[in-house]
Amino acid sequence: MFGVTILGNNSALPAHDRHPTSQLVTLNDQLFLIDCGEGTQMQLSRYRIRRSKINHIFISHLHGDHYFGLPGLLTSFGLMNREQDLHIHAPAPLKQILELQFSAGDTRLPYTIHFHPLGDEGIIAETERFAVECFRVFHRIDCWGFIIREKKKPRKIVIEKANQWEIPASFFEQLKNGLDFVTPDGRVIGNGQVTIASTPPKSYAFCADTLFKESIAEKVHRVSLLYHETTYLKEAEERAFSRHHSTTEQAAAIARLANAGSLLIGHFSSKYELLDDFLSETSAAFPNTQLAQEGVTYLV
Amino acid sequence: MFGVTILGNNSALPAHDRHPTSQLVTLNDQLFLIDCGEGTQMQLSRYRIRRSKINHIFISHLHGDHYFGLPGLLTSFGLMNREQDLHIHAPAPLKQILELQFSAGDTRLPYTIHFHPLGDEGIIAETERFAVECFRVFHRIDCWGFIIREKKKPRKIVIEKANQWEIPASFFEQLKNGLDFVTPDGRVIGNGQVTIASTPPKSYAFCADTLFKESIAEKVHRVSLLYHETTYLKEAEERAFSRHHSTTEQAAAIARLANAGSLLIGHFSSKYELLDDFLSETSAAFPNTQLAQEGVTYLV
Repeated sequence: MFGVTILGNNSALPAHDRHPTSQLVTLNDQLFLIDCGEGTQMQLSRYRIRRSKINHIFISHLHGDHYFGLPGLLTSFGLMNREQDLHIHAPAPLKQILELQFSAGDTRLPYTIHFHPLGDEGIIAETERFAVECFRVFHRIDCWGFIIREKKKPRKIVIEKANQWEIPASFFEQLKNGLDFVTPDGRVIGNGQVTIASTPPKSYAFCADTLFKESIAEKVHRVSLLYHETTYLKEAEERAFSRHHSTTEQAAAIARLANAGSLLIGHFSSKYELLDDFLSETSAAFPNTQLAQEGVTYLV
Repeated sequence: MFGVTILGNNSALPAHDRHPTSQLVTLNDQLFLIDCGEGTQMQLSRYRIRRSKINHIFISHLHGDHYFGLPGLLTSFGLMNREQDLHIHAPAPLKQILELQFSAGDTRLPYTIHFHPLGDEGIIAETERFAVECFRVFHRIDCWGFIIREKKKPRKIVIEKANQWEIPASFFEQLKNGLDFVTPDGRVIGNGQVTIASTPPKSYAFCADTLFKESIAEKVHRVSLLYHETTYLKEAEERAFSRHHSTTEQAAAIARLANAGSLLIGHFSSKYELLDDFLSETSAAFPNTQLAQEGVTYLV
């Protein structure tokens, strides 16, 4: 399973029972938390998410609606006797803020936090199964987007075919990696004769809070699912510009330019109680669009 | 109206849809916020409280469940274009934490915060109508209780009687303050003949997180309404002691020793889903006890 669960879809001022930004990305057995606005730990409880499986937290920028829930979540991890390490990827000043808070509360956590300050674009976390990249976006303060990519998956062996050609099990790893088999008498069995391709690897991009900038489309080129903020409807384009945010039409433009598979929009301004116009305006320009709704999981 | 509205009644780990500590005290037209755990701003919205009327915030100590909601509330005040000054009374290290957070977010608030570090016991805020005192309690870190006291109210003039004795309006302020009137021909009209006493001034004490200590009862002697934490039931007295918290029986003992009018208990450990035993155990020893329930206002 590769999906993103929305924990908060509102902009800075909580309203209309919408919460500040937080998203949980599930990639098989791995949970990633992206941003952690106030109340995120309550939202994790509400939606019965196994928070102990979160090992990486990514914070896009240091406006409070994207991280004021983090100290509480980290403290609660401690109260729940977490022991496994936790990796936090965030703008550098967050480290001192957390240290000061833990020091003031004489808080001793029973687990280790590895703090990774964001500084260069590129891969910031990686295993055999996934890679996470960061890239700069354009907000009032230092702000980052993230892309979570599945790694290319090995080919699947069609076991009957492999047996038919008497390919030894010791060669199966090579088969999965696409190599041809050569029989003892020198015949070449093409890889395609005994394997089939796995589903292509997918990717999710989170574009954080940002001005409309075409260059973002290059960073998120051809991602399977693109999250782009739409703080405002298109009529408020000037306001969006002055506050370093984007509109419905602008998010759709990025998705189109990036040739994204589909688009998820969120970070709605508190001035809008109803969200229907966000969906209609965005999908008019990019049909494969969904509203980020709290408690809903969108498959990548 | 003098009352306290519970916004959060749980201990550190949010659970069972209970929130970390926050209370709103209403004294006529004045709102005071005591503690501000994560989610307090959402709770203020949920219960439709006019947050713009909050001019004093008191923070008992720097464990996160008592202040992690403060930076978000202060930021939201700014987004709502608050202009009037705000007074924060809290342990000194909070100032640097807030400054660091506002600096990291390049946050410029449109109103002025006056930060008053807690340092000496005694009156920390006062007008003609009320006084707020702080006193030390006994927790793992520096921790403070607060008492909000109505000032003695002026006597009420019985206007028919005052006219009957031909007392001039220019003397009414003195009448309200209890003075007798002397007629031009030297007769003394006793104050009690033309005025009646107002209701006696009331007081609310918030004892924060604390170990059981009899000396607290002296600090809160004869308050009208006493809030005392009961993190644990009486069977967990050792656990309470080791964590610098109190039990049901201990809260009742303080209320009895203090000769308090009534007792409000809260800060319930997450390990208890149901709260019935808290009420029965405490009221067995101090009958005039109520459970602090979120969204409920208790009259002082």
